[in-house]
Amino acid sequence: MLATSVILSGCTQTNDKSSEQHQAEPPNIIFMIGDGMGFEYISAYRYAMSEPGAGTLAATPFDDLLLGAATTYPDDTTWVTDSASSATALATGVKSYNGAIGVDADKHPQQSIMELARANGWYTGAVSTVQVNHATPASFFTHHPSRKMYEAIADSLATPVQPGVWSFDVLLGGGYRYFNRDDKNWLPELEQQGMQVITEFEQLATTTTTPLLGLFAPVALPAAIDDQPRLATMTENALRLLSAKQQEQQQPFALMIEGSQIDWCGHANDIACTVHEMHDFAQAIDVVRAFQQQHPNTLLIITADHSTGGLTLGQGGEYAWYSEKVMGITASLEVMTRDLLELPRDQWRGYLQPRLNLDVTEDEWQQILAVEIPAAARGRDRQYAIGKVLAAVISTHTRTGWTTTGHTAVDVPVMAIGPGSEAFRGYQDNTDIGKALLKLIR
Amino acid sequence: MLATSVILSGCTQTNDKSSEQHQAEPPNIIFMIGDGMGFEYISAYRYAMSEPGAGTLAATPFDDLLLGAATTYPDDTTWVTDSASSATALATGVKSYNGAIGVDADKHPQQSIMELARANGWYTGAVSTVQVNHATPASFFTHHPSRKMYEAIADSLATPVQPGVWSFDVLLGGGYRYFNRDDKNWLPELEQQGMQVITEFEQLATTTTTPLLGLFAPVALPAAIDDQPRLATMTENALRLLSAKQQEQQQPFALMIEGSQIDWCGHANDIACTVHEMHDFAQAIDVVRAFQQQHPNTLLIITADHSTGGLTLGQGGEYAWYSEKVMGITASLEVMTRDLLELPRDQWRGYLQPRLNLDVTEDEWQQILAVEIPAAARGRDRQYAIGKVLAAVISTHTRTGWTTTGHTAVDVPVMAIGPGSEAFRGYQDNTDIGKALLKLIR
Repeated sequence: MLATSVILSGCTQTNDKSSEQHQAEPPNIIFMIGDGMGFEYISAYRYAMSEPGAGTLAATPFDDLLLGAATTYPDDTTWVTDSASSATALATGVKSYNGAIGVDADKHPQQSIMELARANGWYTGAVSTVQVNHATPASFFTHHPSRKMYEAIADSLATPVQPGVWSFDVLLGGGYRYFNRDDKNWLPELEQQGMQVITEFEQLATTTTTPLLGLFAPVALPAAIDDQPRLATMTENALRLLSAKQQEQQQPFALMIEGSQIDWCGHANDIACTVHEMHDFAQAIDVVRAFQQQHPNTLLIITADHSTGGLTLGQGGEYAWYSEKVMGITASLEVMTRDLLELPRDQWRGYLQPRLNLDVTEDEWQQILAVEIPAAARGRDRQYAIGKVLAAVISTHTRTGWTTTGHTAVDVPVMAIGPGSEAFRGYQDNTDIGKALLKLIR
Repeated sequence: MLATSVILSGCTQTNDKSSEQHQAEPPNIIFMIGDGMGFEYISAYRYAMSEPGAGTLAATPFDDLLLGAATTYPDDTTWVTDSASSATALATGVKSYNGAIGVDADKHPQQSIMELARANGWYTGAVSTVQVNHATPASFFTHHPSRKMYEAIADSLATPVQPGVWSFDVLLGGGYRYFNRDDKNWLPELEQQGMQVITEFEQLATTTTTPLLGLFAPVALPAAIDDQPRLATMTENALRLLSAKQQEQQQPFALMIEGSQIDWCGHANDIACTVHEMHDFAQAIDVVRAFQQQHPNTLLIITADHSTGGLTLGQGGEYAWYSEKVMGITASLEVMTRDLLELPRDQWRGYLQPRLNLDVTEDEWQQILAVEIPAAARGRDRQYAIGKVLAAVISTHTRTGWTTTGHTAVDVPVMAIGPGSEAFRGYQDNTDIGKALLKLIR
């Protein structure tokens, strides 16, 4: 249904205009960020989707889009960026320190592509699978000295730039609890001022009005491996709403779409979770490419802010990566460890076996069942204690390599199609991407 | 001196011919393979050459050449290739099993780009920093069911294809001991048949005749970190000799240049060794690019056969990679462990301190000094026992991640410039590279 409506509106516009006219007008910009999606994540995804020994590989939406690679280092004392600094570089073209949200090293606000687009009369939006006030979307719309200021970032997003007008037309993701807090509930106020606010995912398909704030979870949405994947559907609807606006007033739009939890699975060193998030992101790319084909005056650019976890496909000396074992795992470590904490240990094996689907050795079972949870550990730390042991077992069986629970400094892929895409060929810095996009909007 | 002669011969040719003529003629092909050089190796090299906190990065010869990436999986039961299978794919355009040297999965010989070039009257050559009968160069000139058949491969290389004519005009690297064995000494025979054979590196610059076999070490050349780097000089001289041939008879040449020990340092999880090998390779690229500028009808293509070691730039949760500590290390693990085995343990600390230049903790010193060398270990295995502990200490201090002593399945970079380079844009398979080169020669 949704795909059809996108295609129809696309046909209308394409038929109305010649390709010469298209080229003269500023293009829509769709900026897709696979958070943590280093080259190795694309390799992992492609092999996971393919059949070992078949002689060919499964096609992926990445295959014909690759143009180059980007360095990601921050303006900091380290070569390794965080998501805030890198999103700031991608959104504003300016290097900053780790933690910076849309500000430079002196904490001065820097104009983002979304702000420039807005100033030029464009429509804007963002889609994320974590809270919409998380580092990546935040850096495209707000300015804060620290990514940790979640409530202040939510306040910035919720505050109209003028009566009835916000910095975005469509903002979809999680983060309900930051907008409806004990000290401040923005939601009734937003609705009163003309913002459509939805909190049920099922409402999205039938929503037709903007500005729209969709907050579908208290914090992050569930991981794609644990629930229905949602990024493609959110993307489809964001495009439906923005292109409807565009039909009305003939202005381009800029939309940022984040495959947010690729990074989270990487931090957890959870390869099955990673591959399913990559699939969620890939399906969203399919949606955008269908839109781009119907609306050729659209620039699609895809990159990552950094790579996470030091993922590699090979471990412990063996020349192998067991993609079919990865695909046999049916739940994230996040869900498995949360559930295990609720179960007596004598039920752990029965719980894990059908979810891991690995030939776990007796020694490994003993390690898992005897895992020590530090007495002082609270909340997530209790899960991490178990997750660490499970991740090691999964990594050994699948021959997946991880080197850190943080990020790495390796360069990330840059993919693009559409008008202006030639700017992204070869090696570049992440700030060059932001600068090229600002230039395109100007 | 050498650089000058290359430039002069280049000017002569460039002035003689119009660019239209150049395009009509088949181009020279210079195929550079960084063995094991995944994307992460280029990131490591760039950051190692740069000053942390300087705000900009050092320029590298890779920066403006990146065109795409390649998948490397073999025709085998695993996604992870070895150097033989991948070199066979790059040289012949055909997938094969791990260990295959220029043969397909049924062990049938497959025509390589060097053989097709030869058949078309081209000049051919190869340069390597390991033995010339190692997997990568071997797959471009010979056909064997196993890479381990070192002597048979040497015999293939040494056997003339017709009296006074071999499969190559220039072959430079190590491997003296495979050509001068107890059961067979090829060298006097080769010289008698018209091959120039040199075994001293210093002879290379003054050698003017081809065919030339230069064997500068019994097996591999010393690592670049431990001795003078040699790849750029070998490359310079191979180009000098091949372009002199070309001047005589107006036929193109095909030259394979391998940065062989990038891979070996990766297998050893030796980051300092790795970065110095990358520099050696980068300097060879500089030589080739200068040649390519003077001889624009030259296609330069650079790729890797696979990535090695699961290198990443980040380890143990910290958001850091200490490039300056990597650059403070002055010897390879290969040399350090060889030397340590000759020293009493009470001299180890004094030996290691000025070579590691790291603030090794007392705990770490105790681990190093107490390393157990298995009684049954022989030769290299005794070095590996020590090397493993040293690599772990270096990795912790520099925050370098490694996940295996083998290879990984991650995609590798593809870089190119010159006529035909457009064929290498975007994602491709390693066999596509071989196929595109064969097409260019036909």
